Amino acid sequence: MISVIGYYTTQFGELWDKSLSDLIKEVILGVLRNTGLDKKQIDAIFFANMLAGVLENNLHTPSKIAEILGVNVPIFRVEAACASGGVAFSLANNYLEAYSDKTILVIGAEKMTDYSPEETTSALASAASGEEQEAGLTFPGLYALMANYYLQKYKYTEENLAHVSYKNHYHGSLNDKAHFRKIISVEQVMQSPYVAYPLKVLDCCSTSDGASAVVLTNLHSLKNKTKKTVEVLASEVATDSISLKERNRIDEILATKIAGDKAFVKSKIRRKDIKVAEVHDCFSIAELLAMEDLGFWKKGEGGKRIKELQTMYGSNGDLMVNTSGGLKASGHPVGATGIKQIGEIFLQLTGQAKNRQVKKAKFGLAHNVGGSGGTAVVTILGA
Amino acid sequence: MISVIGYYTTQFGELWDKSLSDLIKEVILGVLRNTGLDKKQIDAIFFANMLAGVLENNLHTPSKIAEILGVNVPIFRVEAACASGGVAFSLANNYLEAYSDKTILVIGAEKMTDYSPEETTSALASAASGEEQEAGLTFPGLYALMANYYLQKYKYTEENLAHVSYKNHYHGSLNDKAHFRKIISVEQVMQSPYVAYPLKVLDCCSTSDGASAVVLTNLHSLKNKTKKTVEVLASEVATDSISLKERNRIDEILATKIAGDKAFVKSKIRRKDIKVAEVHDCFSIAELLAMEDLGFWKKGEGGKRIKELQTMYGSNGDLMVNTSGGLKASGHPVGATGIKQIGEIFLQLTGQAKNRQVKKAKFGLAHNVGGSGGTAVVTILGA
Repeated sequence: MISVIGYYTTQFGELWDKSLSDLIKEVILGVLRNTGLDKKQIDAIFFANMLAGVLENNLHTPSKIAEILGVNVPIFRVEAACASGGVAFSLANNYLEAYSDKTILVIGAEKMTDYSPEETTSALASAASGEEQEAGLTFPGLYALMANYYLQKYKYTEENLAHVSYKNHYHGSLNDKAHFRKIISVEQVMQSPYVAYPLKVLDCCSTSDGASAVVLTNLHSLKNKTKKTVEVLASEVATDSISLKERNRIDEILATKIAGDKAFVKSKIRRKDIKVAEVHDCFSIAELLAMEDLGFWKKGEGGKRIKELQTMYGSNGDLMVNTSGGLKASGHPVGATGIKQIGEIFLQLTGQAKNRQVKKAKFGLAHNVGGSGGTAVVTILGA
Repeated sequence: MISVIGYYTTQFGELWDKSLSDLIKEVILGVLRNTGLDKKQIDAIFFANMLAGVLENNLHTPSKIAEILGVNVPIFRVEAACASGGVAFSLANNYLEAYSDKTILVIGAEKMTDYSPEETTSALASAASGEEQEAGLTFPGLYALMANYYLQKYKYTEENLAHVSYKNHYHGSLNDKAHFRKIISVEQVMQSPYVAYPLKVLDCCSTSDGASAVVLTNLHSLKNKTKKTVEVLASEVATDSISLKERNRIDEILATKIAGDKAFVKSKIRRKDIKVAEVHDCFSIAELLAMEDLGFWKKGEGGKRIKELQTMYGSNGDLMVNTSGGLKASGHPVGATGIKQIGEIFLQLTGQAKNRQVKKAKFGLAHNVGGSGGTAVVTILGA
């Protein structure tokens, strides 16, 4: 069995006084301290980062991490746009499936706020197809196309979408590492300016700085020493055409469906066993699609279900979604997000989620998406 | 057992009429044709590319490959500067250690010649430390520091280095996929202009376009169907501080030593069993360091041994090195190089190397380096 035995995350936000190296150093020291491990006990490192090459001409980060930590172990950098963190975790899990008695650091980090909005937006657009980039379609535009279609097809209004942001900002207010800790109302979302119709500023996640890390091990002695651990029951990756025009339908993310179905089959867990989930809400519409494509809600039900707010902490629902605040309120330092999602589930399943602790949660799910759905990763964890 | 069952490479060179997507498409179709496989038989893809993000704002390539091929399987992009190809292969090998009956495509591709030399040089410098970049140290400069130290310490001259290029250009003349097929003399190397003293133009590899792919499988039925296969005996990765100033010595690449030692231990092969090797000769000095750090030659012997030309095809030596032409003459499309090295060993061990076929080669080695030695991968294959 493969276990997550520790988690650390930096503050997410506009961290103008910290470089990418500073964030990596903080998160490594933090997760080693939280687990009581020495760096000599780390057998390999998987590192997720999307934008450092484009934004600060910083590639070959494995050797830079080797320098920070003073080690010579294998270090692997993985990039899959906003799914980089989830994919790094999934590959680290594969690594432990291959080799016994190993302990691995999985780190995600991103610096996004030291650049102009134009620079960051252009760099993020690198995850879209060349044709979409040439047409001027950035990600708010791509998700707006999906949102328009969804709202029309299933007869919802922008107010249905607004409830996602309302819920996730409430959750963010409970998470002291979140970028935004301010509660907002549905009305405030509705009154915020349009970014790409029907998506408004408060339907969109932010760009953020931050780093998150987990320790993953299959070393029995280490698991027994650490009291608070969760098992990795599945971590599955699927891909799909990046271009929206190449897809059969745009009211679903096929990669999410495939990765989710594989993860549920592999873990032998039923949907209703999952009590806490972090799903990829880069835009409000994305959370509805995710909940449907993961099989928690039927296709087209999302607009109705979100208004019932049964996935909001404190409700009497069976499944709490994005208790970290999601990408919307927790912030979205791209490479870190997939690791933070898994970290949030780890906190919940080990009873360390404090003022947002979901009771009696034995199983949790993390769902991470790249671009407009060209990559999806679904990880299921069990206490 | 994990086997390489097929290889395809595009021409390496200045391919101004081909995009990165064109190269990926060609190499996928080529390797599927060479192995008689259908795309439905591919369970996962590992993809190596370094520069597309920086040079053409093209990230999230897994979903672009999914679109080209029309598949939904897991696709992983790996980046470790010039070691990207070797690292992708090593991770693919780990994947097959974890899961049985799987067949994997490992692809490396790079477009480098559509940009100005300044753009490409700056992008490549992203693999160096921030401090080295700020000091204006590009890779010729970094390897020149190593070369100067090596030549002084072991009392050699630039002529010793020149023999590496002489040998590798002769090999390139035998490889119809090589970027440079022109035989050059030691005198021509010596008379070529300096790039960074003591390294001259003809001590340095080129920037090139190209893509290479291998198929890796642990599916017994498939291995039995394919006649020409080689086994992967080891594929090991090590890292080291990227900054030269953080290293104990600069007349060795420690990451190469560590990865090499691990690979020899794991494969249970002796150095003298290796009859053909592709080593990372981004600069002439790099081949000498590699041969020493891999344990084929003693430290400091390289300058003398290369002048004896015992690693040149047609000599009576026991080990032929860089029969593909190496990075020097074959060209160095960064992401593709590590895969091409493994492909060359595959051709040699399966008797498909034509006019440069090394006789009675049962074991071969491929050695791929990132940056100035921050990452190294050593793969040992057996017929």
